[in-house]
Amino acid sequence: APPMVKLRIVDVSPKPKDGNAVDASGEIPDESLLATVQLEEAVAARMPCIIRGLSLGPCVDTWPKPERFAEFVDCPVKVHVSRDADLDFVAKNFAYKTVSLAQLVQRASRSVQPEGEYFLCPEERYYLRALGGDSRSEPAQLARQFPQLAPELRLPDQLYPSERQFSSVLRVASAGLRLWLHYDVMDNLLCGVCGTKRVTLYPPYDAEYLYLVGDKSRVANPDNYDAAEFPDFAKATPFTGDLLPGDVLYIPAMWFHSVLNVTYTLSVNVFWKTLRDELYDLKDAYGNKEPVPIARLMQSLQSGLKTVTASGLPPEYCHVYGVQLANLIRERLCDGGAGSGQDQSAAE
Amino acid sequence: APPMVKLRIVDVSPKPKDGNAVDASGEIPDESLLATVQLEEAVAARMPCIIRGLSLGPCVDTWPKPERFAEFVDCPVKVHVSRDADLDFVAKNFAYKTVSLAQLVQRASRSVQPEGEYFLCPEERYYLRALGGDSRSEPAQLARQFPQLAPELRLPDQLYPSERQFSSVLRVASAGLRLWLHYDVMDNLLCGVCGTKRVTLYPPYDAEYLYLVGDKSRVANPDNYDAAEFPDFAKATPFTGDLLPGDVLYIPAMWFHSVLNVTYTLSVNVFWKTLRDELYDLKDAYGNKEPVPIARLMQSLQSGLKTVTASGLPPEYCHVYGVQLANLIRERLCDGGAGSGQDQSAAE
Repeated sequence: APPMVKLRIVDVSPKPKDGNAVDASGEIPDESLLATVQLEEAVAARMPCIIRGLSLGPCVDTWPKPERFAEFVDCPVKVHVSRDADLDFVAKNFAYKTVSLAQLVQRASRSVQPEGEYFLCPEERYYLRALGGDSRSEPAQLARQFPQLAPELRLPDQLYPSERQFSSVLRVASAGLRLWLHYDVMDNLLCGVCGTKRVTLYPPYDAEYLYLVGDKSRVANPDNYDAAEFPDFAKATPFTGDLLPGDVLYIPAMWFHSVLNVTYTLSVNVFWKTLRDELYDLKDAYGNKEPVPIARLMQSLQSGLKTVTASGLPPEYCHVYGVQLANLIRERLCDGGAGSGQDQSAAE
Repeated sequence: APPMVKLRIVDVSPKPKDGNAVDASGEIPDESLLATVQLEEAVAARMPCIIRGLSLGPCVDTWPKPERFAEFVDCPVKVHVSRDADLDFVAKNFAYKTVSLAQLVQRASRSVQPEGEYFLCPEERYYLRALGGDSRSEPAQLARQFPQLAPELRLPDQLYPSERQFSSVLRVASAGLRLWLHYDVMDNLLCGVCGTKRVTLYPPYDAEYLYLVGDKSRVANPDNYDAAEFPDFAKATPFTGDLLPGDVLYIPAMWFHSVLNVTYTLSVNVFWKTLRDELYDLKDAYGNKEPVPIARLMQSLQSGLKTVTASGLPPEYCHVYGVQLANLIRERLCDGGAGSGQDQSAAE
């Protein structure tokens, strides 16, 4: 199995590490400048990292108190509720329930719910991934759905042009809850406002080891899975780190990520586009739909496969040509980029 | 590595093995009847086997003498000529040369050619796979291209309806020459008339281990290949046997086969169709072109892949979707049939 890689931490805080204060001229000290260069390099190289020392604004002080959300008593949100700690999208071990944001924050910040205040069991866990407008076909925008909260969070905007921002998504999670391993098609900055998230990322070039169903892995928990069922999973290289309050995780598009909420957490992430606009699916509200040329290829492939299946071609013919067609696709699409080994060496 | 499997030998000779002659009533003795049932079962199960004891006619006596072919002094044939023992279609280590069939038989039956009677070197080896009419878009027919030879060979016709026969192909090979590992899309009976062929077959379900380029393997010699370059090849299960004069090898469609000519050999094979006529490519003269729905799928896939490549989608996107598309194809085409293990258990 390849070794675990620690996610690089890029500290951009204006206070240099040797304890000197920002100098009198107000110039950014050298160490922070160096960190900014490192950050730009990481984003340019599309390598994930944890950015420490950005100022996220007053939210880091105000949001940790559940009372801050008391005003959202009439603001309904649709949340995932589960008896299991590991949310499993493929096995669907959760229910969707609607509660007010005020209630959600209260419940998610507790490990056990009082009698009469739960859906499934007192130990149930909650997960909110905020959605867009009523239609739910629009991307989430913190400033639109939660205008009272948005001014308290300064979203990092130095890493991408603001017009390329796609969505900003409020996330609330109970302690112990793990979000399934998946990828998104857009670059992502995940801002930790409250609590600790333990994140595990895998490079796009490890896709073949991850037992994908669409954009999600069948492995619900990378730290605890059935090695007999998923023998190749150990071949993937995990990039791990802890996201602390005020930290921002850069997740490049197509990097697989699984997030364990070590504690109750509040976070907001922004997705932004790096490809030409025409490549994105206009109906994508989540940032995870196939780019247009891939979606078309998938459709024509599905229809071609139906024709083959309906032709009555015996299984041994299907098998041999299936291997050849799969090889053709891999040669044309998978051998162009760097291998997993290359990604690793670029990590440190 | 899976064990080598010995090809089943089905002896259908009318003389029973305990030495009793055919009985006076002229009825086929039980043992031969049993063998006929075994043969029908093997063909029904699409399992390869060597059929021994069919009567191939006078050719087994007349063809081994090179003089028999003296009359073909004006009959040109196009042959593969190579310095190497292992013909390699992918690396193209041979030349095409035209000689008379009389000359070919004389040369191929010798290991060293006299000065002035060779193309590349005195030790060069020859391989003829007879072709159809001048246009070469027609399938080979022994009775049409070699009407003097056809009456001397009784082709086995009890295993398929005669109207489904596609071609009958004369083959001539030097001692030591090995034909590349490949498959055909039609069922095949290979009749050994003269000399010994050592055959190695692999089940269709081993396709993924065979490093295919179209219908041919990049492994030119299964007994001697670079394990570092082809690490998965050892996972395939070889089915082996020696085809002696008078023996007939049944090669089901899509079974991979490599043929080593232990000695100088003469043989004729018949291809026949088992699928609906519309599934075969009308322009196929060799019996190895993709069935029509597969050819259409390949074309649309090639064009879809071109669009994706031209879209400028970055390599990490291509990689992840390549893995998903390849998985989709394998799920839809490759998981329907039996595994290699199942094939093995059916072998004995």
